[in-house]
Order: sequence, then C-alpha cells, then structure tokens
Amino acid sequence: MNEDTPQPQWLDEQEQVVWREYLRATRLLEAALDHDLQAHGLQLTEYEILSMLSEQPDRRLRMSVIAELVVQSRSRLTHTAGRLESRGWVRREPCEGDRRGVELVLTDTGFAEIVRMAPTHVRSVRANLLDHLSREDLLALGRAMSAVSNGILSTGVCDDVLATEEQHA
Amino acid sequence: MNEDTPQPQWLDEQEQVVWREYLRATRLLEAALDHDLQAHGLQLTEYEILSMLSEQPDRRLRMSVIAELVVQSRSRLTHTAGRLESRGWVRREPCEGDRRGVELVLTDTGFAEIVRMAPTHVRSVRANLLDHLSREDLLALGRAMSAVSNGILSTGVCDDVLATEEQHA
Repeated sequence: MNEDTPQPQWLDEQEQVVWREYLRATRLLEAALDHDLQAHGLQLTEYEILSMLSEQPDRRLRMSVIAELVVQSRSRLTHTAGRLESRGWVRREPCEGDRRGVELVLTDTGFAEIVRMAPTHVRSVRANLLDHLSREDLLALGRAMSAVSNGILSTGVCDDVLATEEQHA
Repeated sequence: MNEDTPQPQWLDEQEQVVWREYLRATRLLEAALDHDLQAHGLQLTEYEILSMLSEQPDRRLRMSVIAELVVQSRSRLTHTAGRLESRGWVRREPCEGDRRGVELVLTDTGFAEIVRMAPTHVRSVRANLLDHLSREDLLALGRAMSAVSNGILSTGVCDDVLATEEQHA
C-alpha cells in the first residue's frame, strides 16, 4: 500500500459491535464444545470427520472432499487423519480407480466410537448453541452463515486452504 | 454415560443444516481473514490484541482481561504475547499496584504497525463478511451471537479457558 491508496470504509458502530460479538461468540462456542469433547479425548474437527464418514453408505470419503467440508489445509488434515489412524478409528487407503488419491475409511472401532460419543456431542451443541436461540434466530443465523460461505467461496480467497491436490501420505 | 442415560434430543433437519453451515462459514471466514493478514505476517488473534491495546488511553491491558476478550487460555495467550514481544510490538510489565499481575503494553513500533495494518484488515472484514450481509441480516447475526455468548458465559463451561489467574511470565 502506498500513500495514494484511499482509506478504507471504516466500520460503523453497529458493524463494529456485531463483528466483535461474532468473534467472541464463535470462540466461546468452540471452547465450550471442545471442553465437552475432551472427556473423550477428541477435538471438534476430529469428531466432525468421524461423523461425516459414518454418514457415508460405505463409510469412506476422499481426503480432498473432507478438506473442503471441514475447511482444513491438506497438511493439517493429514496430521488430523494421522491422529485418528493411530487410535485405530480410520484407515488411509488409495482411491479405487484413481491411485493418486487418498481416501479416509472409518473402521468398525471408529464407528463404535462415534456412536458412543454422539449423544454427548449433541447435548453439547444443544446446550451451548441451540438452546440460546429461538427458531426465528436460528433460521436468521443460518441465512447469514450461508450468505457468508457462498460469498467467500465466490471470491476464491480460500482456494489455498481448500487445495484439492492429493498425494499418498 | 451408562445404558440408563436417556438418548439426547437429536438435531432436526433445520438445526442440522444451520449447525453445519455455521461451522463451515466460521472456518471459511477465519481462513480468509488469516490469508489477508498473512501479508503482514500476523494471525487474526495477534491483530486483535494489538488493536484492543491501541484503543486504550494508556495502550495497556492486563493479560487476564485480554484472555477474556479474545477467549484464549492463559498459556496460549502467554505464547501469543511472546511472539508479539519478540517483534518489539508489545512489552510485558508487572501491573502497577498489583505486582502479581502482568500487563501487555503496546510499544510505539506496535502502534505504528497497527496503524499500517488496519486498512488492509478492515477491507478484509468488509469483503469477507459485511459485504455479504444486508443491514437486517447483520443485526440478526449480532443478536444471535450475543445470545450465544451470554448463554455460554452464564453456564460457566468456559471458566477453564477464561481462567484469570496471573503470574509473572
């Protein structure tokens, strides 16, 4: 930026209040959910990955698809997958028909684990998020979050994070 | 949990959709903002801390207060403060009148840095969040986030994260 760059449109008071409230609430919620999952030695992203795999008919997803769903870089997801694999909850396998790709497969042990953890986590999401919102507020939150997701994805700024290149880990 | 524990109230379809959309949007936004701050070698939380310090009349805040504002554990905040200190942007000092407490003080170099970075960051918040929301959606988001913050804080589940004990670092 040089001295000719125009000043940005600074946030007005409402925007500033909402922005700080957003940051604070998202962090408090993350901390509360992580706190409740810690009883199972899990982080939220790890839970989500197991949960998404458990919903697939064949309990498997490509690493590149998971990276997009949970918004993790490939290197960070590889690290997360390694932790889950070391506990015997997932296996990494080359994709059928595309041996450059890697899939994550939920093991029977991993499936039993997600079944065991799901009630705790659902109670936590309800107690820390849903119970504090009317149905109207919930739907308004959903609309706002969809608009933000779609807006950011349309700009391409997150392409680095959502890189889909795959290699054997 | 034993076998007598009742099943939780599972999420209905609307709740499930909003919850996943929330997770995805918050992560995309964090990734986008971090991407834009990386040009300055900063993480979002580091920017926020410098920004909050710059708004104080004497450019200083207690570590315990900062930890609550940015929702970081004391140990993680100590690490963050160390990174900012090594760049000469903040100093850690014992609190006047309470020598067990520690304050973070913004240096002149740090103040110049936040002045230099602010336009980039404000443009980023606008481009990745505010530009995607009508004023009505923005205010609805603010109301929902306030309800969540207040709700979580009232339960005390985050007391571990927001621990206010201080010691010389």
